Amino acid sequence: MSAYSTLEKKFRRMNALTEASGVLGWDMSTVMPSGGAEARMEQLAVLSGVCHEILTGPDVGDLFDEALEAKGELNGWQLANLREMQRIWRHATALEGDFVEAKIKACKRCEMVWRSARPEGNFAAVLPTLKEVLNLTQQEARIKSEIFDCNIYDALLDHYEPGGKSARIDAIFDDFSSFFPDFLQEVLEKQRSRPTPVMPDGPFPVAVQEKLGREMVQAVGFDFNHGRLDVSLHPFCGGVPDDVRITTRYDETDFMISLMGVLHETGHAMYERNLPPDWRLQPVGAARGMTMHESQSLIIEMQASRSPEFISYMASKAQAAFGSDGAAWSVENMRGIYNQVQPDFIRVDADEVTYPAHVILRYRLEKELISGNMQVEDLPQAWGDGLESLLGIRPPNDRLGCLQDIHWYDGAWGYFPTYTLGAMAAAQLFEAAKKASPEIPEALTRGDFSPLMAWLNVNVHNWGSFLSTDELLTRVTGHPLDPQIFKKHLKARYLDS
Amino acid sequence: MSAYSTLEKKFRRMNALTEASGVLGWDMSTVMPSGGAEARMEQLAVLSGVCHEILTGPDVGDLFDEALEAKGELNGWQLANLREMQRIWRHATALEGDFVEAKIKACKRCEMVWRSARPEGNFAAVLPTLKEVLNLTQQEARIKSEIFDCNIYDALLDHYEPGGKSARIDAIFDDFSSFFPDFLQEVLEKQRSRPTPVMPDGPFPVAVQEKLGREMVQAVGFDFNHGRLDVSLHPFCGGVPDDVRITTRYDETDFMISLMGVLHETGHAMYERNLPPDWRLQPVGAARGMTMHESQSLIIEMQASRSPEFISYMASKAQAAFGSDGAAWSVENMRGIYNQVQPDFIRVDADEVTYPAHVILRYRLEKELISGNMQVEDLPQAWGDGLESLLGIRPPNDRLGCLQDIHWYDGAWGYFPTYTLGAMAAAQLFEAAKKASPEIPEALTRGDFSPLMAWLNVNVHNWGSFLSTDELLTRVTGHPLDPQIFKKHLKARYLDS
Repeated sequence: MSAYSTLEKKFRRMNALTEASGVLGWDMSTVMPSGGAEARMEQLAVLSGVCHEILTGPDVGDLFDEALEAKGELNGWQLANLREMQRIWRHATALEGDFVEAKIKACKRCEMVWRSARPEGNFAAVLPTLKEVLNLTQQEARIKSEIFDCNIYDALLDHYEPGGKSARIDAIFDDFSSFFPDFLQEVLEKQRSRPTPVMPDGPFPVAVQEKLGREMVQAVGFDFNHGRLDVSLHPFCGGVPDDVRITTRYDETDFMISLMGVLHETGHAMYERNLPPDWRLQPVGAARGMTMHESQSLIIEMQASRSPEFISYMASKAQAAFGSDGAAWSVENMRGIYNQVQPDFIRVDADEVTYPAHVILRYRLEKELISGNMQVEDLPQAWGDGLESLLGIRPPNDRLGCLQDIHWYDGAWGYFPTYTLGAMAAAQLFEAAKKASPEIPEALTRGDFSPLMAWLNVNVHNWGSFLSTDELLTRVTGHPLDPQIFKKHLKARYLDS
Repeated sequence: MSAYSTLEKKFRRMNALTEASGVLGWDMSTVMPSGGAEARMEQLAVLSGVCHEILTGPDVGDLFDEALEAKGELNGWQLANLREMQRIWRHATALEGDFVEAKIKACKRCEMVWRSARPEGNFAAVLPTLKEVLNLTQQEARIKSEIFDCNIYDALLDHYEPGGKSARIDAIFDDFSSFFPDFLQEVLEKQRSRPTPVMPDGPFPVAVQEKLGREMVQAVGFDFNHGRLDVSLHPFCGGVPDDVRITTRYDETDFMISLMGVLHETGHAMYERNLPPDWRLQPVGAARGMTMHESQSLIIEMQASRSPEFISYMASKAQAAFGSDGAAWSVENMRGIYNQVQPDFIRVDADEVTYPAHVILRYRLEKELISGNMQVEDLPQAWGDGLESLLGIRPPNDRLGCLQDIHWYDGAWGYFPTYTLGAMAAAQLFEAAKKASPEIPEALTRGDFSPLMAWLNVNVHNWGSFLSTDELLTRVTGHPLDPQIFKKHLKARYLDS
């Protein structure tokens, strides 16, 4: 067997175990009784240890050398697969086993403290263990930055957005922040000139919401022979490509939260489901980083499902489902609700316009923290200052401020920017999709996502990790990530219509 | 680290992966969409491969040698653990990897053919692949019988009932078969002399059945913080000791099938749940073979739940739950229904009296097949003859005959006798429990299982695999498995009351 084939076999094995962990993770968040947690943590820890052993076995380095020497025998997909394998391997071998274990433990400890500190807004309680997490994160960043020959932030970012560069993100986010304050004022002013949207009268029974959600995700193309929709505290998309599982939570006073949440997760799910089937369990068959992943959830949720075309369809379906009537169900009013802009403290509740401000704030703060330019003690003050300068509001406490997101506390440093990069990629892809398939908006008035999904399958999903994010965008839209298109989209939706 | 400690570490790791497989297996049978099957099979195959590698690593033999040399340093539990580790290791290393893989594939193929052959009663369709499975099973039995120095049937039996001997089973089953025909006639005659039991009027809504089932299993001691109750096509007890998951299926025309099924699985579940907590993930901490496991389901279902004391409690709870009334709910009538005896073709539908006949038939046939004294072609004829001589009925087709059970088709040869050995052990344990805690029957009239469960916890569950089945029975009841007690129980329940 060639060195390359041996590597394929190893990665297939490792990824089957990673898939097993994915299903166990879904189980833990949806159906596992609380008393099963300790045993589950051990199962997951052993699985992750076995994967690490497969990946860092003493023969793997030589296999890469041999495979690279014989790379003339490989086709394009195999070469791309080899490149992705190496990337994963470099991340895995960069750190000593003891260091990785210490970091996992510190993150778990910190996350646990955070879980009780957050509701109390008690940042002081989590400070010592957050410092420990940051310290280990900085060490990881320094080690990887030397090996990858990049700056320390990019060494962390690479884990979520392969090849991502903070210099580029700085430019994109600086551009957006200089555009944003005036734009927000214009949007709010325009909004004030319109009638205040009225919520339709509830309650909206969970069973009806679930039925409506199932209809909508099937309209997007979600196949219940290859997936599930369940309930969890924090909605997510999990499982594996051939059995992709999305979750939501229901609020009987407001059906839109769940509906839009389900459509968002369906975007993630369709990406996983439609990854190139011939490359299952191989690195090149995996999704292309978090920017592209977020672009797929946001193209379904923000670009398609909040478009005037789809809202008109959805409003009539929802009204019929809940057997309700009244002026609140008019398309104009529903658009007002779905596209309402309101600066708020909480990122996950933010609208499309103010969301990037939350992300930019976190990105700037985490860069300062990782570089050591800012101390963790100064975070609450810096958070308040930052939010005030971006959104004009200041959180009254840390629960609504720097304690709101789990990311830093469980070690996900370098993740935040992908949310907004994904929103920008979604706008760019949607524009290109409509150009290639002009019937997309009209189809959405009938709840028909198929022209959009067909285009996404061919142009995004089926590529897996064959191309880098920018190569993929360039191939499909003619140019790398272009934040101007997102701005154009925001202006069109919030000022011009 | 001592050799023994290294072995403990290896088994802990391996058993955590086995637990992961257990959860994935539960998922597959309860919630997995059909399209996830292929990916799941690969996940499970890789997990099983990794476990096999851990167990058969080149250093393991030496570790056993070293640990045995230093066994003076080990306490009783550690010595028992070492013995169990060796037993598992001997099974795992007896066969070459290629042979194991070939057998797994043949069994999977045969099971798939069986799934479509069974509804059609088409034994000819499954014959070629069943021959292949039997052939590989015979090879396995021969290889293991040499290594274990036992006869070939016992080499297979050992996998399900460690240390079990067919010579002993022959004697027990021969004794029962000479007792059985006259006894059955007496029971049927006595039954005819009584009013025919009348089923209470349904329908019995699934939601009410589920609520009632949950109340009943909680009465047994099942803790929903450490377990679940779900629906599956074939009821089972799965999951892991700290998150033990039982399943049932509901029939709206007959609530008793599900209720008794749930109580049966709860018996299995309580055994798993109460295994010695200090020995989690170690072989000595596991359940002591299928005879003891079945004894725990049957002591709850057959001994306790079908006792007149519990039936009187259950009848009033069920009547109240379904809001129904009428003479059918009288305790006399409910006892008549719960203890009705009726020779039938299907093992899983059989009553307590005729069930052993089904098991004895299968045991005798599989012994003949494994030894080569009988050819697979002759199975339908031999099955009909055997059932006729034991129960006086002959199946009209193979669907109701030799195609009904999955066991032989998926490779579980040597399993069947444990069902009836378990029923006998249950009778023996229940007698001892009542002697030690005379309040047990009276408590059951109040739906209170706690005196019985307290006794079982201390005397059975907490022992894990520390003792052999007969050692455990001797310790707790004064003598090894004694089939006379089961006969006494049957006479008391079906003739004397």
